Amino acid sequence: MIIDCKKIETPHLYKLLIGSVAPRPIAWVSTRSADGQNNLAPFSFFNVFSVAPPVLGFAPGYKKAPPGSVRPPKDTLRNVIETGEFVVNIVSHKLAEKMNQTSGEYPDDVSEFEAAGLTAVPSQVVKPPRVGECLMTMECKLLQTIDFGQSSLVLGEIILIHLDESVYKHDGTINLDVLQPIGRLGEDLYSTVKDRFSMPRPKV
Amino acid sequence: MIIDCKKIETPHLYKLLIGSVAPRPIAWVSTRSADGQNNLAPFSFFNVFSVAPPVLGFAPGYKKAPPGSVRPPKDTLRNVIETGEFVVNIVSHKLAEKMNQTSGEYPDDVSEFEAAGLTAVPSQVVKPPRVGECLMTMECKLLQTIDFGQSSLVLGEIILIHLDESVYKHDGTINLDVLQPIGRLGEDLYSTVKDRFSMPRPKV
Repeated sequence: MIIDCKKIETPHLYKLLIGSVAPRPIAWVSTRSADGQNNLAPFSFFNVFSVAPPVLGFAPGYKKAPPGSVRPPKDTLRNVIETGEFVVNIVSHKLAEKMNQTSGEYPDDVSEFEAAGLTAVPSQVVKPPRVGECLMTMECKLLQTIDFGQSSLVLGEIILIHLDESVYKHDGTINLDVLQPIGRLGEDLYSTVKDRFSMPRPKV
Repeated sequence: MIIDCKKIETPHLYKLLIGSVAPRPIAWVSTRSADGQNNLAPFSFFNVFSVAPPVLGFAPGYKKAPPGSVRPPKDTLRNVIETGEFVVNIVSHKLAEKMNQTSGEYPDDVSEFEAAGLTAVPSQVVKPPRVGECLMTMECKLLQTIDFGQSSLVLGEIILIHLDESVYKHDGTINLDVLQPIGRLGEDLYSTVKDRFSMPRPKV
């Protein structure tokens, strides 16, 4: 099949892209509004793009709105633009249900930390709290946003990393059996990293 | 542990980031140089960022170079900047070995298609060929690059998608048991999407 992206309807294209650009890592992003309200939401259009300097990016969307009216940015995007700060928390398998609870569209004055029973721990260099239950979190400062119309790419520099001793191996690598990060697939699906294999890089 | 990203050495930080921002989807990117040489290489700093318009991004690095000398961009990045075109091919599990073969640093005049025994099939709207063995490929045109010093984020618009009938389900979703995309983890590790679970979005 050949699909012309100018002709396919957006919901259909969305299904194809999230089902095939997979598995995607999940950024569980905590932000704080200018007036002090904490927010927490997961995004799977997310990755690292540079290590020196350390840069990551994720792409929050705009809220749904009636046809003809302006779509407001999601709370996460609004807060990042207002404050220039955010925290990316890594979701371990056992936190999957709580992460999913924070993906609903709650009213502005609801903290997803409270709604999902999570601990908001103060960060060190940014105002938004980190998720205390997470084994790895990254405190970030906004570099720039790139707007695509219905979503924006948020690029941030990683300033500080909190890493639980239990996931750190002596050779400096991450213990995947402890961190157990999950990946996002299409539909309502997620994958674990339990089934894995190794391929050494070719020596060319 | 608290890690100050200004103080940690780059190779150490790299290990932590690739081990925890995981599993990452893989863009197997084909490009063609201005003088007609095909290139193919995998990148896992990759994701979708927008569906309307359809935008994806991946972050190729610069080649290693002796201290003090200028690091040249990898062939992929040079070709994308020169020509404004690239193709992203999705790597199914059974193509993992061939994908890995194309991750070596071959001389400029070697086509990784030939080195790995892959079929370069002409694309429809861009000059770089697609990987004939892949079940899904996306023909893309460059939107912009953002340089971070040792890597660049390449943003492109997806123009045309080639999808094998076998991976397309009648409800418009992707059959993961057929596509079998693989995820990149830290070290030399990859994950499959065989072990998966479902969580319906909360109704808030």
